[in-house]
Amino acid sequence: MNAESIQTTAQDLDPALKSVAALDSTRVVLERICTAREVTDKVGPRSFLHAGPPIELDRIPGPMRGAIIGGLLFESEAKDVAEAEAIIDSGEVEIKPCHHAGALGAMAGIITPSMPVAVARSDQHTTFAPLNEGTDGAVRYGSYDDKTLVRLRWMSTDMVAVLDEAVQGSEAIDLVDLIAEGLRRGDECHNRLVATTGNLIIRFAPSFIRSKHRDAAEKVATFMAGNGHFALPFAISMAKALTLAASDISGSPVVTAMSANGRDFGIRVSGLGDRWFVAPSPVGEPKLVPGARIEDITPTMGDSMISETAGFGAFAMTAAPAIMSFVGGTAAQAAQFVEEMRGICAGTSSRFLIPVEEHLGTPIGIDVHKVRETGIAPVINNGMAHRLPGHGRIGAGITRVPIEPFLAASEALAAGARS
Amino acid sequence: MNAESIQTTAQDLDPALKSVAALDSTRVVLERICTAREVTDKVGPRSFLHAGPPIELDRIPGPMRGAIIGGLLFESEAKDVAEAEAIIDSGEVEIKPCHHAGALGAMAGIITPSMPVAVARSDQHTTFAPLNEGTDGAVRYGSYDDKTLVRLRWMSTDMVAVLDEAVQGSEAIDLVDLIAEGLRRGDECHNRLVATTGNLIIRFAPSFIRSKHRDAAEKVATFMAGNGHFALPFAISMAKALTLAASDISGSPVVTAMSANGRDFGIRVSGLGDRWFVAPSPVGEPKLVPGARIEDITPTMGDSMISETAGFGAFAMTAAPAIMSFVGGTAAQAAQFVEEMRGICAGTSSRFLIPVEEHLGTPIGIDVHKVRETGIAPVINNGMAHRLPGHGRIGAGITRVPIEPFLAASEALAAGARS
Repeated sequence: MNAESIQTTAQDLDPALKSVAALDSTRVVLERICTAREVTDKVGPRSFLHAGPPIELDRIPGPMRGAIIGGLLFESEAKDVAEAEAIIDSGEVEIKPCHHAGALGAMAGIITPSMPVAVARSDQHTTFAPLNEGTDGAVRYGSYDDKTLVRLRWMSTDMVAVLDEAVQGSEAIDLVDLIAEGLRRGDECHNRLVATTGNLIIRFAPSFIRSKHRDAAEKVATFMAGNGHFALPFAISMAKALTLAASDISGSPVVTAMSANGRDFGIRVSGLGDRWFVAPSPVGEPKLVPGARIEDITPTMGDSMISETAGFGAFAMTAAPAIMSFVGGTAAQAAQFVEEMRGICAGTSSRFLIPVEEHLGTPIGIDVHKVRETGIAPVINNGMAHRLPGHGRIGAGITRVPIEPFLAASEALAAGARS
Repeated sequence: MNAESIQTTAQDLDPALKSVAALDSTRVVLERICTAREVTDKVGPRSFLHAGPPIELDRIPGPMRGAIIGGLLFESEAKDVAEAEAIIDSGEVEIKPCHHAGALGAMAGIITPSMPVAVARSDQHTTFAPLNEGTDGAVRYGSYDDKTLVRLRWMSTDMVAVLDEAVQGSEAIDLVDLIAEGLRRGDECHNRLVATTGNLIIRFAPSFIRSKHRDAAEKVATFMAGNGHFALPFAISMAKALTLAASDISGSPVVTAMSANGRDFGIRVSGLGDRWFVAPSPVGEPKLVPGARIEDITPTMGDSMISETAGFGAFAMTAAPAIMSFVGGTAAQAAQFVEEMRGICAGTSSRFLIPVEEHLGTPIGIDVHKVRETGIAPVINNGMAHRLPGHGRIGAGITRVPIEPFLAASEALAAGARS
């Protein structure tokens, strides 16, 4: 019996390793850049997607309300803020989780039909996430001022045209490779993506130069160069495709989604289907922007922690010591976090390698049983929004997520095995 | 007396700190891209510059001979290799060190009038180095085949036009900032410059898109994206401007040039003017390309170790753990090397910061007295060429340079102080 067949047998026996194998082997490419309505029928004029586990419209936090106001204005469903607020207050907006549509929304995660998205594809799944607007006013942080909406309109038209021309006219971009290369260039690819964004520019540059939309292409290249988070939707769409491949494996204790809506933090687990296990969303100890107050913060929010779920972000922080000045902390602490995460994961990536750890792979496949055994909950790198609509970003941090959902999922799996 | 005036006084007293202050404060910008003859009168049809300390034509190693053959063909001074060899053998070529012309040549370092160069400028000095041809056949490694020469002709015409258009049409690129950012993106900026090259593409992209030379611009962007060493001449021209600023300070023991010609390794020291202190060039223990033999190697050659002289390259290896797979070794060894170099340097950079060392600066200003006191010679990251003309690159390594020149310089300084 050779090594390969031994491994196959082990995976046959161990559902966690099946999930790890899927996380570690699924190939994901960049499919297209388009508007959300072109890739899903789960959005409509007043039917939007949102970040996190399911939430009722009357429970949404301030920035998500701000993002819905922005979405209604953007879709021309409301002519002004007052009309948008009236539409929300009369319950005429339907919202459902991005995760239920193969989508990911950073922060508030509101996706409306006309929003520009990056679309990823594996053999089995199509996933997508909105293009990143930067941090100087962004719908995902709850902003809805004119400047934000003008930018978003430009992104959904000219930028989509230029970027999709580049995607269709270039060799397919392997998004796992893109992130793996980012880890070699000092990104952890959740909150530091400056080199990865650069790599997208580098890949697209020949197409930009010969673009039919030359003026727009120059503007797109300049915008991307000034927005170090631009690669985030490309990273998280890829991560979602990996975690979907690792899902629905009978008995597997591997986490396939972590997500938050500003009220609840929730997880899904491979062996437990579409069920969400939730707990109150954490605030953590974020590094605030100058002048911001901790009492003004919205608790953790967003789908982008799919990064950690797939084995990068905070799980690859040793690759990105420079991020510590953004989220707060030291390089030594980053190393401690990654080491700690190794203790709750079922495997080690063979693709996301960390040069400073002698090219050891990142921990992948959070195992709810190991979380229960060790008492260690995962950490994530995340941005933080103001609690009020329209007030935008006020910080970033390394946040420990609540352990309760992992304990509950572990027990549910064990109960299922016993029954 | 405030902190600033205390520091000023210390520098007045300590010549080494004066050199360190110059290394650490000089601003260097990218001035232009042009041919060598446009920036210096020290080259002519049969008058070339070469890497390393002075060497007679009949002592030059194989790759330097190959590079001169390539230069004569490139300048149309010879119609074929045989004619070029005859010109060399009859002594009709004049060569002098790049360092005597404010220039730097990687590897063989042959600079002929028509070669394309990147030009850097500080308040006081203009420096330049040939554009990087890649590793798939390159004159600097002694290649002179048609493919190499065709590429070099294209680089000296179309590429120069596109790049200089970008330099003149963009905000001035601060080359110290460029390298500092490279260190945050996993480059040490001597043998790993893939992110730094990417940053040049990112900076130039808007100009490329609106270029008058659109087809050429697309080709230039594609070439740069495929050549991870492209940023090297930009880095070393900057480094030369820093070390020139640190030169000629009475009594200063700080090294202002390290360089080799494949026969001799040599240094210059701030307080000792233009004098070269030399020893036989080292071979080290390079990581060879598959199939190459250690006995086929040319000992260390090239001016690019000005990187280490200015405080990056091997002196910043902790910033670039991924390089270890290129030069051989582990991330832990990289950390040991940098720590060791701290022991022989007179200062710490306030600009070249290493994230994983909690943003500690790199060691700068090799002090020949400290080398003598500790018995520790500097290390460099370098490429290695085949010993025969036309055979190109066969390896790369981390090489310990000979200690003798440092000891001799230390004694010369001490003798000068006594006299």
